[in-house]
Amino acid sequence: MLYFHNDYNEMCHPKVWEKMKALQGQSVNGYGVDPYCDAAADKIRSLCDDSELAVHFLVGGTQTNLTVIAAALRPHQAVLTVTDGHINVHETGSVEATGHKVVALPSPDGKITAEQVAQFGKAQKENGDREHMVQVKMVYISNPTELGTLYTLAELEALSAACHELGLYLFLDGARLGYGLAARGNDVTMEDLARLCDVFYIGGTKVGALFGEAVVISNPAIAEDFRYLIKQRGAMLAKGRLLGIQFVELFRDSLWFDLAKHANSLAAQLQKGLEEKGVKLLVHSPTNQIFPIFSNDDVKKLSGEFAFETWGKYDESHTIIRLVTSWATDPGVVTAFLNAI
Amino acid sequence: MLYFHNDYNEMCHPKVWEKMKALQGQSVNGYGVDPYCDAAADKIRSLCDDSELAVHFLVGGTQTNLTVIAAALRPHQAVLTVTDGHINVHETGSVEATGHKVVALPSPDGKITAEQVAQFGKAQKENGDREHMVQVKMVYISNPTELGTLYTLAELEALSAACHELGLYLFLDGARLGYGLAARGNDVTMEDLARLCDVFYIGGTKVGALFGEAVVISNPAIAEDFRYLIKQRGAMLAKGRLLGIQFVELFRDSLWFDLAKHANSLAAQLQKGLEEKGVKLLVHSPTNQIFPIFSNDDVKKLSGEFAFETWGKYDESHTIIRLVTSWATDPGVVTAFLNAI
Amino acid sequence: MLYFHNDYNEMCHPKVWEKMKALQGQSVNGYGVDPYCDAAADKIRSLCDDSELAVHFLVGGTQTNLTVIAAALRPHQAVLTVTDGHINVHETGSVEATGHKVVALPSPDGKITAEQVAQFGKAQKENGDREHMVQVKMVYISNPTELGTLYTLAELEALSAACHELGLYLFLDGARLGYGLAARGNDVTMEDLARLCDVFYIGGTKVGALFGEAVVISNPAIAEDFRYLIKQRGAMLAKGRLLGIQFVELFRDSLWFDLAKHANSLAAQLQKGLEEKGVKLLVHSPTNQIFPIFSNDDVKKLSGEFAFETWGKYDESHTIIRLVTSWATDPGVVTAFLNAI
Amino acid sequence: MLYFHNDYNEMCHPKVWEKMKALQGQSVNGYGVDPYCDAAADKIRSLCDDSELAVHFLVGGTQTNLTVIAAALRPHQAVLTVTDGHINVHETGSVEATGHKVVALPSPDGKITAEQVAQFGKAQKENGDREHMVQVKMVYISNPTELGTLYTLAELEALSAACHELGLYLFLDGARLGYGLAARGNDVTMEDLARLCDVFYIGGTKVGALFGEAVVISNPAIAEDFRYLIKQRGAMLAKGRLLGIQFVELFRDSLWFDLAKHANSLAAQLQKGLEEKGVKLLVHSPTNQIFPIFSNDDVKKLSGEFAFETWGKYDESHTIIRLVTSWATDPGVVTAFLNAI
Repeated sequence: MLYFHNDYNEMCHPKVWEKMKALQGQSVNGYGVDPYCDAAADKIRSLCDDSELAVHFLVGGTQTNLTVIAAALRPHQAVLTVTDGHINVHETGSVEATGHKVVALPSPDGKITAEQVAQFGKAQKENGDREHMVQVKMVYISNPTELGTLYTLAELEALSAACHELGLYLFLDGARLGYGLAARGNDVTMEDLARLCDVFYIGGTKVGALFGEAVVISNPAIAEDFRYLIKQRGAMLAKGRLLGIQFVELFRDSLWFDLAKHANSLAAQLQKGLEEKGVKLLVHSPTNQIFPIFSNDDVKKLSGEFAFETWGKYDESHTIIRLVTSWATDPGVVTAFLNAI
Repeated sequence: MLYFHNDYNEMCHPKVWEKMKALQGQSVNGYGVDPYCDAAADKIRSLCDDSELAVHFLVGGTQTNLTVIAAALRPHQAVLTVTDGHINVHETGSVEATGHKVVALPSPDGKITAEQVAQFGKAQKENGDREHMVQVKMVYISNPTELGTLYTLAELEALSAACHELGLYLFLDGARLGYGLAARGNDVTMEDLARLCDVFYIGGTKVGALFGEAVVISNPAIAEDFRYLIKQRGAMLAKGRLLGIQFVELFRDSLWFDLAKHANSLAAQLQKGLEEKGVKLLVHSPTNQIFPIFSNDDVKKLSGEFAFETWGKYDESHTIIRLVTSWATDPGVVTAFLNAI
Repeated sequence: MLYFHNDYNEMCHPKVWEKMKALQGQSVNGYGVDPYCDAAADKIRSLCDDSELAVHFLVGGTQTNLTVIAAALRPHQAVLTVTDGHINVHETGSVEATGHKVVALPSPDGKITAEQVAQFGKAQKENGDREHMVQVKMVYISNPTELGTLYTLAELEALSAACHELGLYLFLDGARLGYGLAARGNDVTMEDLARLCDVFYIGGTKVGALFGEAVVISNPAIAEDFRYLIKQRGAMLAKGRLLGIQFVELFRDSLWFDLAKHANSLAAQLQKGLEEKGVKLLVHSPTNQIFPIFSNDDVKKLSGEFAFETWGKYDESHTIIRLVTSWATDPGVVTAFLNAI
Repeated sequence: MLYFHNDYNEMCHPKVWEKMKALQGQSVNGYGVDPYCDAAADKIRSLCDDSELAVHFLVGGTQTNLTVIAAALRPHQAVLTVTDGHINVHETGSVEATGHKVVALPSPDGKITAEQVAQFGKAQKENGDREHMVQVKMVYISNPTELGTLYTLAELEALSAACHELGLYLFLDGARLGYGLAARGNDVTMEDLARLCDVFYIGGTKVGALFGEAVVISNPAIAEDFRYLIKQRGAMLAKGRLLGIQFVELFRDSLWFDLAKHANSLAAQLQKGLEEKGVKLLVHSPTNQIFPIFSNDDVKKLSGEFAFETWGKYDESHTIIRLVTSWATDPGVVTAFLNAI
């Protein structure tokens, strides 16, 4: 079986592994209060060019989303996202389990626009029912989106401005951020994210780490007492140093960016090959997830040899599938797939 | 100002008031453990022709919805409704505040169909992601719906069968149930509701009571320990007898049905008059809420003389408004409105 | 049966009833946005001599406690009270159901002292475990306490200072506040409460109203968006005017104070009579609840003729009972009880 | 600095590390649906001699406690523990954040007795206030307790019987279970736990693993849909195989037991040496945590050379400290400490 299933089916990059190994035999304070987490946080603040940022390390994405949202919102406040947003669909209602509604807007490409936010905010303000409806206080986006698409810097700046005009927090889920920042044509930097978002996170799990997400908070209202929230939500790793050391290594010599580039490059090759063979795509993706549409029969045949997810029904006789490359994908797998069509 | 604003702007029917007055000077046990609540519960069990039903009295609708849903669901379970569902829009995220997601399906007439439920349930079962998504365990409907439309008995039976086939609870919000059961053409009875729903409630607040909703539970899994939930959610009225005595009176000599008939009849007259004048309607409603569409200019003019809610934008130059009659509406108000057009 | 069971077994004072009756036939806006609630809020602001206070009206005590606490605290924050505190024992975990821990300190007389708070706050600050423990952010007291005892002005001032020194909110549950303010020897005024507490409420249900509690908020952080919380928790009464008009009447011509004095006076007479007969008391109470200790046999005998609650076991052969007088208690009942011993 | 600080300051046992390394280069399904988790679950079912048990792997202890409790309880239900219980003190209100009250009973040795539970249950049943108070539905214990003490088999059997007599779940937190099962004099086995508890967990983090806790559920009511709860609470590790493979290795050739024996043996040596030197102990502990009492001056001196936690004030001039040995503790450290006194 050849794998396009996802980008977390492999362990971690060998360099990350080696560094973790070096911790063996050391006795280090627990719960992320250690020199490795400190160093990783410093490195991230430096990448973001902002020494005031709060940086925390958590284990996984759902955990991070629910902890950030619980920290940020008062009980009557809600978070706005797109219909396909990960928190709206694939986290088993974890945000609602913290007490908050997820309000979803339709989006053809997985992105939310400044105009949508402005319009929503205007309607919310004009609404005579005020306290009978939730108060949206945060906009949640992911970059890349669930469809592998990317925000441009101009889009992010407009979105951030629209949010702040309305007093909304902007939260960016960066579970696959590496693939986004390393994408061809991307014009967004880590500094931009720190400047434009109130909080975002840098995904490790899907980009070369064994596990780990680095939360970066620029808004002091969200940063306050954040470690209490981490602990309360069961998200404080006893041996927190494991998180710190991985991020130190991922950001040494651009490893994290290089791994992402590798995956993006293979995905681009795959996408180009599919287009050349006349395969239709749901969206054009510049990152490591691509969404071709095949006949149901072809999907069945391909699934004998390749592991991938079916994304949804395109029409009665066609299905959208998702092909994901990762830092660990072998180029031969891409060739094999293109040959199999 | 003449009022079509809603059906809870008036106090209560004089007969209800008189009976409450008779409680003055009596010393009665608190918290709904009293002969008046017992009598009202017995009366409702009798109307439903089921002596096994659990019946409880709460003060308001949002309170009732959140208490029932909190009692019924485990943390990972969700409730399915239509986009316009009251719990999805107008209760400030109160269901989410109990930890549960509200999943919404589109509906042109405010109703959810057996087919929609069956299809949703099928998709849920086939879904490979199972535990990554919420588990819908309850279907929430209101009858009449938010648009004043009604379920037929055949529709309710099909919906109930579809729910129970999938192991889902069926919960019917009857805040305006009186207007539904008393509607011309309605073929649903209180017995049907008790038989087809796992839990439903009978609205008093909007149909002649000062306040009060009677929850009727046929499913023992939801009934178990229900009073704990009432207390915990702050919904246990100290002087619970006030609830009991109102329902006793509303169900004496069909008062509740008669009051609803009065409102429906005026609404029908209004709807007919509007149609005759060529006014377009969003839906055709057999109950006490009607939804005409006027030009924005006309809306402005009408609002000088009449109190009503704007329901939404129809197009750039037209607006949907909601006109509500109640047990207390004077026929002259209807005539005045029709003359004003 | 003669009643010392509690102070909410009677309806409401006739004057309150008469005023409510006057609402019949009027069409008034729903949800507490009406002239009666406005007038009641103005009256309360005037009694508190502070025109900046936010005033809201809710239906019951548990509902009020959970709504205030949910509005005030972030998820990792907790509320401090005494072991017997109503929120700690008799509200079915309603505060925990909003996500917050109730931390309880022992108290022989139902009161929490400034010293206890200061010591607790010091321990919290010195604690190396910080984020592994909840962060107490609010002190909850009731006045009178669950044991009928009262805070002196000096005690309240010290407690308020201790709270504010530590950045804690002070929240006073005034379900029986009338009996406290009207007690012989009491030196606390409504102005004091508004000045010393961040939020408190004035109980109507137990002091002459049919139902209703008036929340008075001086701290803007708690007041912000409070109506959203009321709605979300199912605590927004559709016909909110019922709350407003009752408080208008209770505070006209000192009715509320007079009713409380009546109850206190009978309780004092009862307490004096019991002491003269050598009956031991759990605490000496200046308000309408008293706590005599009788042999188990005597309790059994008395319960044939009088309705009261047993408060707890005193020792193997003795039981503490609770006798409550109310605005509606007849003096003859007190005489009857004393004669029965 | 020599370390008695805790048992999670070291990484993991080298054999565990080596096995994890062997996963490098493999592509394995995510979220714990993999052969390693399957094998570990089978091994645990075999150790428990019960092929029907549900076994799940989570990352940390607080996470496990909150997930189990959220899965087990309805909203009005509470969990009973001792005052020092980890969930009552050191988890930042994580149980309350799931909506449930933690009810605490005093205990001199960290254990809860069958008598306490029976008495509590009796009081709960006799209580006239029923629905005004939380309904305790689960008893939470840890073994070893927070004070390092152990339940005997007879105690556990009595406790289990008392719980089941009252319809309560018994939940055992086994974060340090290895140190308990390997303790000299212990007569409890893994089979006993599976038989007597409704749910318990086997701690890896503190006994040789990098991280990981194995939840073992015998009661189907708690097991149902448990993976939904894991996901919803952010506790589903993307690369779940890391958990499976560690438990496979820990239970190969009794490694887990051997590591625990090592720590217990050093703690016993330390405890004996302290007693011989006349140092008073808070409790006598058969496991890897011991609680000597020193003068405040001695504590200060010792803290220059040794890392340990202060547990609390014994009296004005004495302090209780906690010394913890682990699978990684060097015998020389014990000798050094004894020499330092």
